[in-house]
Amino acid sequence: MSDDLDARPRGWTRLGSRAVHRGDHLTLHHDSVLQPDGTEGTYDRLTIADGARVVAIDEDGRVALVEDAFYPPGARLLHVPGGAIAEGERPEDAAARECEEETGRRPGTLRQLTAYHPLPARTSAVAHLFLATDLRHGSLRRDPTEATMTVHWMPLGDAVAAVRSGAVSEAGSAIGLLLAASLLAPS
Amino acid sequence: MSDDLDARPRGWTRLGSRAVHRGDHLTLHHDSVLQPDGTEGTYDRLTIADGARVVAIDEDGRVALVEDAFYPPGARLLHVPGGAIAEGERPEDAAARECEEETGRRPGTLRQLTAYHPLPARTSAVAHLFLATDLRHGSLRRDPTEATMTVHWMPLGDAVAAVRSGAVSEAGSAIGLLLAASLLAPS
Repeated sequence: MSDDLDARPRGWTRLGSRAVHRGDHLTLHHDSVLQPDGTEGTYDRLTIADGARVVAIDEDGRVALVEDAFYPPGARLLHVPGGAIAEGERPEDAAARECEEETGRRPGTLRQLTAYHPLPARTSAVAHLFLATDLRHGSLRRDPTEATMTVHWMPLGDAVAAVRSGAVSEAGSAIGLLLAASLLAPS
Repeated sequence: MSDDLDARPRGWTRLGSRAVHRGDHLTLHHDSVLQPDGTEGTYDRLTIADGARVVAIDEDGRVALVEDAFYPPGARLLHVPGGAIAEGERPEDAAARECEEETGRRPGTLRQLTAYHPLPARTSAVAHLFLATDLRHGSLRRDPTEATMTVHWMPLGDAVAAVRSGAVSEAGSAIGLLLAASLLAPS
């Protein structure tokens, strides 16, 4: 028995892969695999762009929360500024760009908070989280999908309470706000 | 100009939808839409099951972290117990079931932490997070994809440090551990 256990595969092996759909923002792959127990199976996985988000804190200690219409849930959601990292773009540059485009303020100082996997059972994509301070004045730039976007500046404590209540529900916003609050809490 | 702004659509409108792929764990939909600025476009969105995860704390104040092989990133990731909610299952029942299946301990007391959207630009799916205490002894039950799963019990503070460092990178685990730590911190 212990020999069998020692011989078991230590993960997944890809046997084949077929792109089922190639869209502007995602590719869906239908793979044939060896599962961790050694049996054959199939696996649907996505390729999407990595993301970057930024907890931006102004000179009054208020944090930027962007409200925008999200198509899949059919709801307006509050989130910290951010979006997809462009091809060849550095995560910190994407975070600074999205911050300026969505709030009109650009980070003077940018500090990495962490990176996370939004949905690792479906995609290898990661999102990078930053803390921005020393905000400078910049220029709003929004694309056609962001026509109804609005920005709210609120005390960090209120934003953390909104994570607890579920009013801020986007994963990266929740992680970023909780990390920023624990980092900036009086020790 | 202000008339034009007042007349702009306040969100997204679905014009049509086609299922591009129906798999065991996801359906990909290719929709035609009216974008928030009123122009036509297309949108790829996914249907996947909602999820439930649980921060389970034992009698010594240690938290359960499960290590398992994730196929899309091709890596073993640490996460708090959890998984997909079955058809008709309540989120709290899914959390308790996954906790027992993955750790061998079942929650005596289960408290809701929050719910979040892992990837709201691609899917309406939500994941529900719980805090479990008063753990009872139960039975491990793992499926073929979980053959190499291991469980680690560690102090909550160490688990939070692992979120900061990126060693715990799964979204729901990060949010749950940070919320649990702020809830259980001495005031």
